[in-house]
Amino acid sequence: MPALRHPVKINVDLGEGYGNFKCGPDDELIPLIDHANIACGFHAGDPLIMQQTVRSCKAHNIAIGAHPGLPDIQGFGRREIKMSPEELTAMVTYQVGALRGFLEAEGVPLNHVKPHGVLYGMMYRDKEICRAVYAGVPKGVPVFGLAGTYHEEVAKELGLPFVAELYGDVKYNPDKTLVIDRKK
Amino acid sequence: MPALRHPVKINVDLGEGYGNFKCGPDDELIPLIDHANIACGFHAGDPLIMQQTVRSCKAHNIAIGAHPGLPDIQGFGRREIKMSPEELTAMVTYQVGALRGFLEAEGVPLNHVKPHGVLYGMMYRDKEICRAVYAGVPKGVPVFGLAGTYHEEVAKELGLPFVAELYGDVKYNPDKTLVIDRKK
Amino acid sequence: MPALRHPVKINVDLGEGYGNFKCGPDDELIPLIDHANIACGFHAGDPLIMQQTVRSCKAHNIAIGAHPGLPDIQGFGRREIKMSPEELTAMVTYQVGALRGFLEAEGVPLNHVKPHGVLYGMMYRDKEICRAVYAGVPKGVPVFGLAGTYHEEVAKELGLPFVAELYGDVKYNPDKTLVIDRKK
Amino acid sequence: MPALRHPVKINVDLGEGYGNFKCGPDDELIPLIDHANIACGFHAGDPLIMQQTVRSCKAHNIAIGAHPGLPDIQGFGRREIKMSPEELTAMVTYQVGALRGFLEAEGVPLNHVKPHGVLYGMMYRDKEICRAVYAGVPKGVPVFGLAGTYHEEVAKELGLPFVAELYGDVKYNPDKTLVIDRKK
Repeated sequence: MPALRHPVKINVDLGEGYGNFKCGPDDELIPLIDHANIACGFHAGDPLIMQQTVRSCKAHNIAIGAHPGLPDIQGFGRREIKMSPEELTAMVTYQVGALRGFLEAEGVPLNHVKPHGVLYGMMYRDKEICRAVYAGVPKGVPVFGLAGTYHEEVAKELGLPFVAELYGDVKYNPDKTLVIDRKK
Repeated sequence: MPALRHPVKINVDLGEGYGNFKCGPDDELIPLIDHANIACGFHAGDPLIMQQTVRSCKAHNIAIGAHPGLPDIQGFGRREIKMSPEELTAMVTYQVGALRGFLEAEGVPLNHVKPHGVLYGMMYRDKEICRAVYAGVPKGVPVFGLAGTYHEEVAKELGLPFVAELYGDVKYNPDKTLVIDRKK
Repeated sequence: MPALRHPVKINVDLGEGYGNFKCGPDDELIPLIDHANIACGFHAGDPLIMQQTVRSCKAHNIAIGAHPGLPDIQGFGRREIKMSPEELTAMVTYQVGALRGFLEAEGVPLNHVKPHGVLYGMMYRDKEICRAVYAGVPKGVPVFGLAGTYHEEVAKELGLPFVAELYGDVKYNPDKTLVIDRKK
Repeated sequence: MPALRHPVKINVDLGEGYGNFKCGPDDELIPLIDHANIACGFHAGDPLIMQQTVRSCKAHNIAIGAHPGLPDIQGFGRREIKMSPEELTAMVTYQVGALRGFLEAEGVPLNHVKPHGVLYGMMYRDKEICRAVYAGVPKGVPVFGLAGTYHEEVAKELGLPFVAELYGDVKYNPDKTLVIDRKK
């Protein structure tokens, strides 16, 4: 993990392009952040982008997490898909494993797992979904989530280290979940 | 690795269904074989099938290898796709990593890597492609391939343990490569 | 439309393989049925399968309908995906148009449209979804659906000819919708 | 077809985004061009983007053509895929049909077909591929291509109206084919 750079550490989603398609100013962001959540190929990211993003993060001493999403490039992981708990678990194991392939090739550890997009929201709205997703996280790997929601409760239940995160650009509901502007 | 069962060990491609689609009598084959080559989601296999196939192989003490293919479910990895060496390497790292996710969750080792379908043939016909694919194999993991072809030559060049395999149901060309019935 | 063969006409989903993957005994079924619902590439079916299925149906004088599904080969169109009404309409226009490409090449008309899998159920449970899907059906083309549900109500609202169908192998709820065995 | 605006008519590829991913300044280009080649969902474009692009073109009186590509969103239709002639024909019929679905819904005609990316080049390098692709074009619909290559020869052979086009930003080989910068 990198030395402390900010009193509050900053995590950002990276590597969310796909093939010819770009998404976000990754090169400008990398020097400014502490933790990267790297897309794992299901909602965005392809193997080459993942490899290059891992290498860029390593070069800047950024701690790297997996950012698994629903299997939906067209919908960018923002369209809810009803999957069985078994499918959700396997889907997370797959994506986290794929990212670890690049991490191991570069000799850097997996710092954390943070689910992407609507999956993140499905997890704080549905405890079974949260359990199924976290069941795909390798033992001992921290998860980033929303304090006071199922994210935190289920992480404790499963013995996964929990790191609470705050969104600087999203409003909150009274129950500590996020207000998402569906029109956006 | 399991105890020797046959004077010649038998390896079979497994887990090559996709979602609702079945492919091959995996359950009947598993008790009869020594090594499984498990599809990794690009030409066939999905996360749930991979997880279940790994568990079945573990239960029968079958040594498990990764079976990465070209990214083409519709073509079952049998349609040649021209990819850059960098893409090929990253694609193999991704798929092998994904399979390792399931292996680690089950506490079993990765025994080998054997590329699938037309990729296997592209590798013995083109040394650069062979190098690019093997560059995605984790250090020290054996590769299964055709003796006397680039498979063997490049494996040695890169320091990967090489295991020669024979096809019982395919004819050979004089240069030790396979005669593939393109109509099939 | 073929001459009457049965007092009750029989419609069957056809062309639901994908690339190397087979699904259902199409060749055995075609001589026995009146109407085919041909998969359009989103939940199953690929262009070559669609072309061949259209030709087989034409040879047997089977009336051909489009069988559009959710964009999810892995889930076979059986996993609910939350899509906007605009996406649903465009998705149906796309799939029906694609099938018509093959029909026009063969000089046979489009007989009807029948949505596939979970989309069919989403439509009788949610009027907005039903409207969005039917909005993608070309004017004047009949839709096959469940009598007494939104299927029928919305078809009338939009001026689409409605053909009521019965399932011989599925149980019904008191509200005339289907009892689907979720475990299956 | 719109009234003549330029002594030389300008055609541009449009609708080449995918879901959340943008590609090109379509809105700025549309007022400046005569013909649009609209992506059909295989190399880029999704149903909603296709629908919206057709509507924008209609509003600006732009003639609309289909822009079918190889089935490879990740590679943006720029990675050569070896497909059988039958697959190529069916793939073109499918994509052109899908676009026509949107055109018919808007009451505008299909002006032409122009294949995308590496498929375009494969066609002037291989006569059989050119024949297979053009076999998927509906009878009587013009094709845009390179004069003096198989594009023109095969169009005449199959009785398809041929419209020669020039690239303003690509260099030519002595045989009238394009010099493509492979590094780009």
